[in-house]
Amino acid sequence: MTSYAVIMAGGKGERFWPWSRSSLPKQFLALTGERTLIQQAFDRLSKSFSPQHILVVTGEDFLQMAREQLPQLPRNNFLVEPVGRNTAPCIGLAALVLAKKDPEASMMVFPADHLVKKEEVFQACLERCLDLAAGGKQLVTIGIIPTRPETGYGYIEREENPLPGEPPTYPVKRFVEKPNLEKALQFLNSGRYYWNSGIFAWKAGLILEKIQKYLPELYRGLKYLEPSLGGTGEEQALREVFPSLPSISIDYGVMEKEQNILVVEGSFQWDDLGSWAALAEHAFQDKDGNTVRGRHVCIDTKNCLVYGQDNLIATLGVEGLIIVESDGVVIVCPKDRAQEVKALVQKLNEKGLDEHL
Amino acid sequence: MTSYAVIMAGGKGERFWPWSRSSLPKQFLALTGERTLIQQAFDRLSKSFSPQHILVVTGEDFLQMAREQLPQLPRNNFLVEPVGRNTAPCIGLAALVLAKKDPEASMMVFPADHLVKKEEVFQACLERCLDLAAGGKQLVTIGIIPTRPETGYGYIEREENPLPGEPPTYPVKRFVEKPNLEKALQFLNSGRYYWNSGIFAWKAGLILEKIQKYLPELYRGLKYLEPSLGGTGEEQALREVFPSLPSISIDYGVMEKEQNILVVEGSFQWDDLGSWAALAEHAFQDKDGNTVRGRHVCIDTKNCLVYGQDNLIATLGVEGLIIVESDGVVIVCPKDRAQEVKALVQKLNEKGLDEHL
Repeated sequence: MTSYAVIMAGGKGERFWPWSRSSLPKQFLALTGERTLIQQAFDRLSKSFSPQHILVVTGEDFLQMAREQLPQLPRNNFLVEPVGRNTAPCIGLAALVLAKKDPEASMMVFPADHLVKKEEVFQACLERCLDLAAGGKQLVTIGIIPTRPETGYGYIEREENPLPGEPPTYPVKRFVEKPNLEKALQFLNSGRYYWNSGIFAWKAGLILEKIQKYLPELYRGLKYLEPSLGGTGEEQALREVFPSLPSISIDYGVMEKEQNILVVEGSFQWDDLGSWAALAEHAFQDKDGNTVRGRHVCIDTKNCLVYGQDNLIATLGVEGLIIVESDGVVIVCPKDRAQEVKALVQKLNEKGLDEHL
Repeated sequence: MTSYAVIMAGGKGERFWPWSRSSLPKQFLALTGERTLIQQAFDRLSKSFSPQHILVVTGEDFLQMAREQLPQLPRNNFLVEPVGRNTAPCIGLAALVLAKKDPEASMMVFPADHLVKKEEVFQACLERCLDLAAGGKQLVTIGIIPTRPETGYGYIEREENPLPGEPPTYPVKRFVEKPNLEKALQFLNSGRYYWNSGIFAWKAGLILEKIQKYLPELYRGLKYLEPSLGGTGEEQALREVFPSLPSISIDYGVMEKEQNILVVEGSFQWDDLGSWAALAEHAFQDKDGNTVRGRHVCIDTKNCLVYGQDNLIATLGVEGLIIVESDGVVIVCPKDRAQEVKALVQKLNEKGLDEHL
């Protein structure tokens, strides 16, 4: 029985505009170091999976870039979604491909654009997930120990009693969508909630069963695709079927409905890097709390994120700002409003300035 | 007897960096409208002086740009300083040239880079200054009615009793250098102080006499130049003499020492545009108090100055900031620290990043 890693790399990443663009989403950017986020995901997974057993699912527009960034990956290990339809169709497609290859295959699913630190803890979680998934009866996920009352993440409530073994693993009581602050505080204080990491493990056949049960429309679409997969008609079939699939997340479509799920406690550092401010939290900060890329000259500048590409950025007497420049665009906003950058993107769209998006 | 206008256009303008550069100082920039500041100065003076009677004094590096921006001005009306030596040598040179042309010539001196509004009031002041200067016995200046306790300007204290005639004109009691805030408040409240506008009127021969009296070293330099002026040896002589002249302002070198000066009250709007913040005060502000040039997209942005050239600038949730982009440089600073932009320029210089200056 073989285990596969599936990297989901179809996201748009408007929140990292203007570094991210519609043609260059977040997962393909080197936001935190020399390597792009998808390269970092690949590097992490390479410790547990051979390149032959890593799949990347991405959009048509990003296929070439993904191949360039991951030259170690066999060409056939890239699956292309003609249009993005959220995570359930993406995961369903990967499961279908793997189940056809190996009816007993296990798979783990990873977002391409998250940040992970303490990788040895991460590896231990992967091993545990794969062991549990190999049993073939349960869906498995990783829950991150929350460190703040974050309202931008979904949560997972666990049952009282753990299974034997390490890292700690519990039956899932329920999946919870992004809470308000009051609830997030309750969750944090209860000690029984994890952040939903978006990392899952299961047998390919099992998730297909669950899709059949909870998302029959998606399942029918996948079954229609099945005969073409791996053959010359694959691309044509995907183009035909994908746009008609329901756009729905695996969390909402399956996990929230399913009772039989295990959660492995992830005590590694994790962030979904949802904004420039989140990035600033995790990237290197100098003695004044500034996170800098590119050329920066400053006087009396504190706790700023300054990311420049083509321009020298000079700052004087500012604090807590995000200043990012890329390819003809400069944005300036306070860190505590970094979540709203996508509203700026939307405004440009409305104004017909989409050459900058 | 003929009257001449002399526009001093040798300034560096570090405070408008990065729009102003060492190769493109403030007076050659269109900061407040379609026309550059020196063009605006020329337009204003054209109502009182014919182009034949307007001289521009500028640096070697700026000669071509000055000629391009003022095509109406005869080529010989540009005087070139091989190096900038502050205003006294600049004015001395112009006076020498004019006195040689016409021993009875009157001259008025104007900075090239100031802002003037209410031009009809300005014209009336010019007429009055020229009338008074024509008497030939006194140095004349324009004092601006102060509207705030500005510490960035020099002041002129007037005597109690005005001369007959309009606009109001008084003997000068004393010239005062830039005060601290306490003194500036006293000056403002006393009603007897004006801002030193840097605009002067006198007979060319008279200011040369005063230079002889108060700045004998400068006078000797000018006398050494005199025989070469207008001839083929002029450029060579200027190159030889100018670097050795004392670098001193006419205010400090002559006006503060001389007793016999008249000040004409200038009730027009005036600003020496000493910073981006000063510019924002005078330029058009939209309903949110923003002053914008170039492409700007914003959400919740107030009282900012946003001047872009090559980049789209997007702002979100910021207030009172100066954001200026030009030719590979972006600066961000609060309006109330705009005076310190020159410190940034200095820092770049120290870092050897002078390609951006």
